[in-house]
Amino acid sequence: MAQESPLVTEAKKIPIEALKYTYTERDVILYNLGIGATEKDLQWTYEGDDEFSALPTFGVIPQFPASGSIPLDWLPDFNPAKLLHGEQFLSIKAPIPTSGELVSQARLLEVLDKGKAAAVTSVVETRDKSGTLIFENHSTVFIRGSGGFGGQRSGSDRGAATAENAVPKRSPDAVSEEKTSPSQAALYRLSGDENPLHILPEFAAIGGFNKPILHGLCSMGISGKHVFQKFGAYKDIKVRFAGVVYPGETLVTEMWKEGQKVIFTTKVKERDTIVLASAAATLVDNAAKAKL
Amino acid sequence: MAQESPLVTEAKKIPIEALKYTYTERDVILYNLGIGATEKDLQWTYEGDDEFSALPTFGVIPQFPASGSIPLDWLPDFNPAKLLHGEQFLSIKAPIPTSGELVSQARLLEVLDKGKAAAVTSVVETRDKSGTLIFENHSTVFIRGSGGFGGQRSGSDRGAATAENAVPKRSPDAVSEEKTSPSQAALYRLSGDENPLHILPEFAAIGGFNKPILHGLCSMGISGKHVFQKFGAYKDIKVRFAGVVYPGETLVTEMWKEGQKVIFTTKVKERDTIVLASAAATLVDNAAKAKL
Repeated sequence: MAQESPLVTEAKKIPIEALKYTYTERDVILYNLGIGATEKDLQWTYEGDDEFSALPTFGVIPQFPASGSIPLDWLPDFNPAKLLHGEQFLSIKAPIPTSGELVSQARLLEVLDKGKAAAVTSVVETRDKSGTLIFENHSTVFIRGSGGFGGQRSGSDRGAATAENAVPKRSPDAVSEEKTSPSQAALYRLSGDENPLHILPEFAAIGGFNKPILHGLCSMGISGKHVFQKFGAYKDIKVRFAGVVYPGETLVTEMWKEGQKVIFTTKVKERDTIVLASAAATLVDNAAKAKL
Repeated sequence: MAQESPLVTEAKKIPIEALKYTYTERDVILYNLGIGATEKDLQWTYEGDDEFSALPTFGVIPQFPASGSIPLDWLPDFNPAKLLHGEQFLSIKAPIPTSGELVSQARLLEVLDKGKAAAVTSVVETRDKSGTLIFENHSTVFIRGSGGFGGQRSGSDRGAATAENAVPKRSPDAVSEEKTSPSQAALYRLSGDENPLHILPEFAAIGGFNKPILHGLCSMGISGKHVFQKFGAYKDIKVRFAGVVYPGETLVTEMWKEGQKVIFTTKVKERDTIVLASAAATLVDNAAKAKL
């Protein structure tokens, strides 16, 4: 393995501020609606429900500003319109509060030189006011046009966060299908990712897309909801963003249970294209909520 | 006209606190989405758009907590599940800020004894921090089962707020049709009306409905959007809530331009039932935005 680029070594020294995220039950409902929860799912859309809760992938929301606060403008030819979300790993360390104040501390973990692109992985720890760790997120973004700076080409083994999660040869154990709304991205972005790539046609064109694309984390949330509905609670979930989704398209999540792991892939039905790959969730040990 | 009931005279003396409403552009977008604005309407769903604005009926939102803060438990047999929104009049007095802090002061205007129900009209003035009047709202709610306390049966003439707005005999000058989403109420309620009538089947049943109903103010917003899209800006809008809408049904707004007034009625297409009646908007004098 090549040495870390001196550019990266220097970038890791840039101090990164911890960021607060304050939220209410309304924000939780807005997130749940943004990933396709409906009026039929009162536990996700009605704060008065006895089982009211955030869907597990809500864990990517409080950390999002922190993750995005890592400076990347030291990369050669950096252009934010050329940024694409590559992978996301979320580990849920404690029950998710339905309101409150959380603090997220990001750090740069590794920056790989993929030739034409840079692959930047950050880790964010999100804690409650008492200091209890609630979420750990690993995000990898690809910056197209910012590669070729020299150095490491492949990353470290980080367990579930980097697992390839090969799909078994048998038919899936469960399949969920869900049509997204043409306004899905316009709604989802209110949960904190206001990148105009997801709403402004001119900006999407700069990024090389025919029209605005759905947030990768929204697709992850929808499929994460499918896994929860079929198999119950999980303690971590990882996806690779393998293709874009246009709001209004139909997502099909195919799931295979392998021990405590649910491996899944997500396709866009209309274009028969895989959009989430190398994906899996690790179920909680107490399988009482398994629902298949 | 009969004398005002002493019960009402006493109720008008109950002090009512002015209530603050603090909001951001995100709240404006959430409201606009809640009344069916889409990703195609960037002026209503993207805060970075040059023309970004609240739809005019946003004016009912900041005043809503104030309007609902008027105590009604002095009415005989008061039951909040028996409350139905009867009429709403909104007058827009100044350009609508897309964020900020507004203060609303409610007062009880009149309480009519309709025999089986009480009809309660409140007025709310909403001002910005400088004291400039932005909105004036008149809301009439019917409390079924709380009539028969004696007193006034018919109200005062309050101009546009009480106009009957008879529909001309000719075909409508413009018609807009819009299918609501089954989750429309679950989304709309995040703009501040969290009455479980609109999401909880058991609560809707107590109110006498087969299932949760859409907020009347949401239907008003959707039709108000149709009027704006066809005829441009208006300075006031009034509706009578003549029937319920179930989320997922299709609203058809029929509009007639009569001088500066756009008279409209709104039907549910699937049940051919009028849901907004005696409705009209008064266009601004500068008709530059007329779009028909």
